[in-house]
Parts: sequence; structure tokens; C-alpha cells
Amino acid sequence: MKEEQKDAVLEAMHQRRSIRAYTDEDVAREEIETVLEAGRWAPSGLNNQPWRFLVVRAGDRRQEALAEQTKYGHVVRRAKVLIGVYLDREAKYDDRKDNQGAGACIQNMLLAVHALGLGAVWLGEIINHEPDVVEAAGLDPARYEMMALLAVGRPDQKGSSDRKPLDDLLLEPLA
Amino acid sequence: MKEEQKDAVLEAMHQRRSIRAYTDEDVAREEIETVLEAGRWAPSGLNNQPWRFLVVRAGDRRQEALAEQTKYGHVVRRAKVLIGVYLDREAKYDDRKDNQGAGACIQNMLLAVHALGLGAVWLGEIINHEPDVVEAAGLDPARYEMMALLAVGRPDQKGSSDRKPLDDLLLEPLA
Repeated sequence: MKEEQKDAVLEAMHQRRSIRAYTDEDVAREEIETVLEAGRWAPSGLNNQPWRFLVVRAGDRRQEALAEQTKYGHVVRRAKVLIGVYLDREAKYDDRKDNQGAGACIQNMLLAVHALGLGAVWLGEIINHEPDVVEAAGLDPARYEMMALLAVGRPDQKGSSDRKPLDDLLLEPLA
Repeated sequence: MKEEQKDAVLEAMHQRRSIRAYTDEDVAREEIETVLEAGRWAPSGLNNQPWRFLVVRAGDRRQEALAEQTKYGHVVRRAKVLIGVYLDREAKYDDRKDNQGAGACIQNMLLAVHALGLGAVWLGEIINHEPDVVEAAGLDPARYEMMALLAVGRPDQKGSSDRKPLDDLLLEPLA
């Protein structure tokens, strides 16, 4: 990629933060499609693409049903769009690698959200409430395993969080 | 982000492919650092950042030791740089979510690789060979769980792969 394009990609990864407060402004259907397209292009083991998406817009009765399944219900209620990410057990091939693939897919969507000027938070606590949380969305828990719920909207806050220095993550110094 | 920046981020996700053949040209230390920095900024549950990296350069005796642990040994032998991604069991909090986090971290690194004009492939089959594959890198399998090996170099092929249409991934049509 060209220098400016490279910088944009790296900047998206460095500057993206969890956003848990959203303005009243709606999110367009085209924006949601752009986010889902990003998830679609994630890599997966054997290219099995086990992820499935359920999009719930603000006001849909499932928004409240999902909110009741997590201690972060206030974030779910504020969101303009919820993207439920599931694995289809019929498409899985390896539990650990399919979970990793879901993570790659979610990260693509979070980066697309940021690139679009939207904000999102990856809600993970909610999946502790399987199978009820899968049923709350009207899905069959025997077939769909919930990976995460992404709450999305237009940012009404600045995000903040930090990371360990790279030296703490390296198992030996770079040669 | 500005329109051109947004396009660059989305393009990186859509155009990145697995690259399994590399030229003889080396990869600079600064490029490796840029890739690792991208991984460092991935999101994780409770921000626990459980990932750890081991970088093995071409010619290091561990390159051959790792190659012997996978049926994709020819790719490992060709790579100019190998990035082993591990979870530190002392930093984990939830097996499933830590695996997802590793996937997000790996995806950031793959996107950075692409943005830099490098090529990489996410090798997953190699982790089937735990604990031997962890020992082959000189690490303690009681502490470090292997998530993936990334083989990196300058692309000597065009990648190709496709994805299911978005409609096949949607659990109900977009409203």
C-alpha cells in the first residue's frame, strides 16, 4: 500500500477504543453493511467462515431481551445497532481455532466501525449467559454459539485505554 | 477518519490474502516492530492482553525445529520471519475469550503486514502439536499456550481466496 494508506491502517489499530456512549443519531444501513463486509473478509482455518451475524436495530424488542442478559445492559440499551456474532456449529472445525477466527472477524468489524467514524464496544460478558442469551435473540442454542455482542452507534465520548509496553510482550528481545 | 483513510482501512481487510511464498529479500527490524505494535493494540477482555510474541529470524536454529512440527514445514522454512503467538497462562482470564483476543491480535498483525507490502500466512495446524511445538521454540509449555505461527516475508506470489456472500452469513435479512 502507499505510505498514506499504510499510515491509515496502522492509525486505525492504534486509535480505536471501546465506545460505550452514543448520540441519538442513527446509523445508516449502508454503514452496517460496510461493517459486516469487513467481518466477512476475516481469515479462518480452512477458510471455513463459521461466523454468523444477527443485526438488531434500536427499538427492536430483542434489544431489551439482550440487555437483560448482561450487567452491561445500559450499554445495550443505548446502542443504535447491535451486532450479535455467533458460530454455526455446523460450520465449525476446531473449537479453539474457530474462537480465534471469531476474534479476527470481530476485530475487522471494530476497525471498520472506527474507520467510518462510528464507535463500538465488544461485549464479552454477555456470552457467559448461554444458552439463555441465544434464546433471547430468537436463535437455537443447539446450533448457534454466541461469540460476542457489538454495541454500535455514533460516539458520544472519547475512549481511553492503554496497553503494556512491547518489551513486556516479547518472550526475548528482538534480534 | 477521512474518506481516503477509511477506504485504505477497508481495502486492507478486503485485499489481504495468505501469502506462502517469499522472495529472498529480508524484512527489516523496523517492519517487524510495526507488525508487533499492531498486535499490541488489539482489544482483549478486561484488557488483560494475554498475548506474548516470539520472533524467530531466518537461519535461527528454531526455524527448522518449528518447521518439523507442522505439515506446512516448507512454508516455515521459506519465511524470513516467524512470529510465534502465545497466551501466557498467568495472564489468562477466560479460555474462550482469550482465544478470541488472540485472533484479534493476529488479525491486526496480518493487516499491518499487508499495509507494509509484506505477506504472511496464519499457520494454525502447527498448534495441534502442543506441547512439543512449544518446547521446540525453547518455551515452557506449562506456561505458554501456542495460538499460531505467522510466517512472514516479501510476497513472491499473489494470494487468492474467496468468501461466502454476506447473505449466507446473515441470520436474518438486514432491516
